[in-house]
Amino acid sequence: MTFHDLHHGELPLLLPNAWDVASALAFVEAGFPAIGTTSFGVAASGGYPDGGRATKGANHELARLLGRLRCPVSVDVEDGYDDDPEQVSDYAAGLGVAGINIEDSSAERLVAPAAHAAKVAAVKRRSPGLFVNARVDTYWLGQDATVPATLERAAAYVEAGADGIFVPGATDPAQLRELAAAIPVPVNVLAHPTLSLVELGALGVRRVSTGSLPYRAAIDAAVAVAASVRDGRLGPPATPYPEMQARLRRFEDLPR
Amino acid sequence: MTFHDLHHGELPLLLPNAWDVASALAFVEAGFPAIGTTSFGVAASGGYPDGGRATKGANHELARLLGRLRCPVSVDVEDGYDDDPEQVSDYAAGLGVAGINIEDSSAERLVAPAAHAAKVAAVKRRSPGLFVNARVDTYWLGQDATVPATLERAAAYVEAGADGIFVPGATDPAQLRELAAAIPVPVNVLAHPTLSLVELGALGVRRVSTGSLPYRAAIDAAVAVAASVRDGRLGPPATPYPEMQARLRRFEDLPR
Repeated sequence: MTFHDLHHGELPLLLPNAWDVASALAFVEAGFPAIGTTSFGVAASGGYPDGGRATKGANHELARLLGRLRCPVSVDVEDGYDDDPEQVSDYAAGLGVAGINIEDSSAERLVAPAAHAAKVAAVKRRSPGLFVNARVDTYWLGQDATVPATLERAAAYVEAGADGIFVPGATDPAQLRELAAAIPVPVNVLAHPTLSLVELGALGVRRVSTGSLPYRAAIDAAVAVAASVRDGRLGPPATPYPEMQARLRRFEDLPR
Repeated sequence: MTFHDLHHGELPLLLPNAWDVASALAFVEAGFPAIGTTSFGVAASGGYPDGGRATKGANHELARLLGRLRCPVSVDVEDGYDDDPEQVSDYAAGLGVAGINIEDSSAERLVAPAAHAAKVAAVKRRSPGLFVNARVDTYWLGQDATVPATLERAAAYVEAGADGIFVPGATDPAQLRELAAAIPVPVNVLAHPTLSLVELGALGVRRVSTGSLPYRAAIDAAVAVAASVRDGRLGPPATPYPEMQARLRRFEDLPR
């Protein structure tokens, strides 16, 4: 089943977002059919805040490693790390993965829809088979966070060749239904505690991402387990060392 | 309080082991007075099994970043990534941190005690102020896992200038008491579910490391939270996004 096909199952495709190789291996082991990455997790790992174009190299390296997995991988590339569409298309073509997420904001400001559409078009021209998930940051940033403004941006990106539209931060069921009905490609939202996959599917959503949630749960658990040792309490569970070593040895044996 | 001083508190010094910047920042925020790193976590992040000398560059980069923290940092450098003591001492001198952990095995085999002692001596000659925690892998690898064999190795490393001795895998209280009584520098063990910090302190242990436990708890939580979204269950807690962004912004503002 191709990455594109996975967007047309009975339920929305749930993409867990890895920040490194071991987290991706753990998601594969848990049965997820495709893996995303979290640029926030990658940035935070290296000591950088989100969205600052600091992870161009680290995300390329992660893509190169995860490209060895047998399942489709979609890499979150912030805004493509450049204003020049040709630079962005070069970068995307070098990742060697099934898909990318690319956002229409830089430094927490929305960019002009035409500027983002030009990036999407350049990437699709260079890499026609790459699943380009164009992110509309209206709701995420609380800037022009309305259905019409979001649809106008989405339409420009679909016209430019986007394979999917990602609207993080949109959580109102009526608005999600309206967005999904009007956007002719699969619509992706962030997982939200009040909306199950079944409910999101019924609203027309075709893909759900965990975003930085797994990385933030990871950081929380790391502190909780160390504090439990300090305080003599029972801590959260941990994957056994031999199991992780065995996964890493299998990964080393995959063709490069 | 210096890193050396922290080994002489009322309770053993508990070192939580970070694998990246965000995990280290979370440990600092939780009040831990000093931070270690886990070479297994760093290796697993990059897709490599433990102890394979694959993380020389990644650990150097992590040390460079964590060196900005105001608290002491001890970096786990596997076996120093080289058989040549001078190469190891160059590497250690370049880390810019308060301490290192260096193990007396390579590729899961114990090395001759004199070979490891030569590394410890070279590092201390070059970096007299660095806290060198020499790891004895007898119990960890189940090779010569006896008190006399462990003490013979520990004595060679202390003679070479080691500031501490780390005996991962030793968990028998009577043996720990014997080791701590005979070793004239602070003895470090891995945290163990059946032994509290108070009990370990009473046995004479001066330092306790979490090892790869926080990283393995992190991986477990990442999968658990993604599976909870998939299955519509309540998942483990996650650090809020704004809190992590704020920590990273404060880190960016630290002097380099």
